[in-house]
Amino acid sequence: MTEQHSSGQDSTAITVVGLGPMGSALAQTLLDRGRSLTVWNRTAGKADALVAKGAHRAATIAEAVAASPVTITCLNDYATMYQVFDSTDGAFQGRTLVNLTSGTPAEARMTADWAAERDLGYLDGAIMVPPPLVGRPESVLLYAGPREVFDRHRATLALLGDPRHLGTDPGLAVLLNTALLEMMYATLNGFLHGAALVGSANVSASEFAELALGWFMPVVLDPASLAEQAANLDEGAYPGDLGTMQMNLNALEHIVRTSVEQGVHSDQPRLMKELAEHAIAQGHGTENYFAMFEIFKRGRGPMPGGGR
Amino acid sequence: MTEQHSSGQDSTAITVVGLGPMGSALAQTLLDRGRSLTVWNRTAGKADALVAKGAHRAATIAEAVAASPVTITCLNDYATMYQVFDSTDGAFQGRTLVNLTSGTPAEARMTADWAAERDLGYLDGAIMVPPPLVGRPESVLLYAGPREVFDRHRATLALLGDPRHLGTDPGLAVLLNTALLEMMYATLNGFLHGAALVGSANVSASEFAELALGWFMPVVLDPASLAEQAANLDEGAYPGDLGTMQMNLNALEHIVRTSVEQGVHSDQPRLMKELAEHAIAQGHGTENYFAMFEIFKRGRGPMPGGGR
Repeated sequence: MTEQHSSGQDSTAITVVGLGPMGSALAQTLLDRGRSLTVWNRTAGKADALVAKGAHRAATIAEAVAASPVTITCLNDYATMYQVFDSTDGAFQGRTLVNLTSGTPAEARMTADWAAERDLGYLDGAIMVPPPLVGRPESVLLYAGPREVFDRHRATLALLGDPRHLGTDPGLAVLLNTALLEMMYATLNGFLHGAALVGSANVSASEFAELALGWFMPVVLDPASLAEQAANLDEGAYPGDLGTMQMNLNALEHIVRTSVEQGVHSDQPRLMKELAEHAIAQGHGTENYFAMFEIFKRGRGPMPGGGR
Repeated sequence: MTEQHSSGQDSTAITVVGLGPMGSALAQTLLDRGRSLTVWNRTAGKADALVAKGAHRAATIAEAVAASPVTITCLNDYATMYQVFDSTDGAFQGRTLVNLTSGTPAEARMTADWAAERDLGYLDGAIMVPPPLVGRPESVLLYAGPREVFDRHRATLALLGDPRHLGTDPGLAVLLNTALLEMMYATLNGFLHGAALVGSANVSASEFAELALGWFMPVVLDPASLAEQAANLDEGAYPGDLGTMQMNLNALEHIVRTSVEQGVHSDQPRLMKELAEHAIAQGHGTENYFAMFEIFKRGRGPMPGGGR
């Protein structure tokens, strides 16, 4: 069953391509806000629930793209995206693609080139919340690409959350997304490994959370002080007057030894210790811990023997 | 030159053994607060500055210990500590040792036994701030050991910062210290690696800090929500309704690929990815990311072939 939809007239009509958990959440949000919505998914059945609520089901991807001035897409990966949009040549002309497919900055930049060849406005974006939180005013979505394309569609994008434009380099949204998620995972792993450590002596995670989150982290790593340090990173200044890399290495060695002693997993502290050792070997022993920035900035070349 | 000091009379007299940066900061703070202070260091010259300000220099470690009801010690490691206090037999009787030497919980527990054999009150502690911040009312020091010993010396300990008693298991102070530091280092590494990632596209660390610390982290990992999750950890409940380990693995794979692509260091995201893969292999694929707790709780046995 295919609903036909003549949408050229409705300038606020939107198409969503890709109806996984995130695509469905985006589509549902747009429907809820009263937008005329066209949907397409390779497995057509995934559109059923949305169609039952008033979405138009496009018979082909070309029809889907032609139906609205803006197509939002969120697919599994870039390979799938190119495959899906392969048969849309021409249909895109003068329209805008907002691509929320997860990928790397290089993939985003390549797709921006691909879009430019097709006279297609292009924004690359990243959604910073899980599907159930899409559409909340505080849910941030990051976008990169031409400022005028962003401004033209800002009202639409604002239906999905708090839209932020990072710059014209189309790789910036996924890059920032990646960096923020890295910080999130690293912090979570730190919390969870810390909880595992104290758990080995029958201290509950709740008790650890109280100390770690109720007191230690806000005091020792309060966002304002950490943000101040960022300026030092940009200048490459790591004065060791409040503590040196060597002192931090001693602490990291204790964390590894304690992890082993208490019988908890030790790969994470071990890597941190090895990274600090590497920083010292590179001459940062008398600088403060933020000098790790210099280590992280440099990729490892291929290791002898083909290791990572 | 040796100042003789008959201190048996002064119940608030204190001895500090070990005058590295931290021991010196402790000693200086106690002097500043008007306490009668005896000091001892293997390299006697390190006491000169304190002696010039009124501290008493003990000629021997036995004399140092005998001089005060409480001896605070902060040495490089436990091997040094046993060596130093080897010749104090008898001098300790009825006195209290507050040991702030960095070590592992097992070392702390062993020293508590050693102290018990010598009729010596024992507290094991950990200082949560760098030397320059010792003595500030908000600087936390963690202590473990008999509650009555802690209470008896609380007023003295409060001169050094905010003293917290964690429990009677003498290993608890260093264990909590270790777990909190682990979380701090993991978070810092996440921030620094994230800054390195965006730096590869000429986004400044300050700009990253603004997004990461001014918005993302406080929203996504706000301490209150994270503390709520701690109760789930204690129950082993990891419902995957807001996101599964498999979804998180996809994100971690993107972080690794992006790190490689952007030419920054990739060991840290790679380990996080491998840990998530391991969690999925262990059956946590449909649970949320906090199920990593189950992985961290279990130490790795010896690997086939003698790996870590």
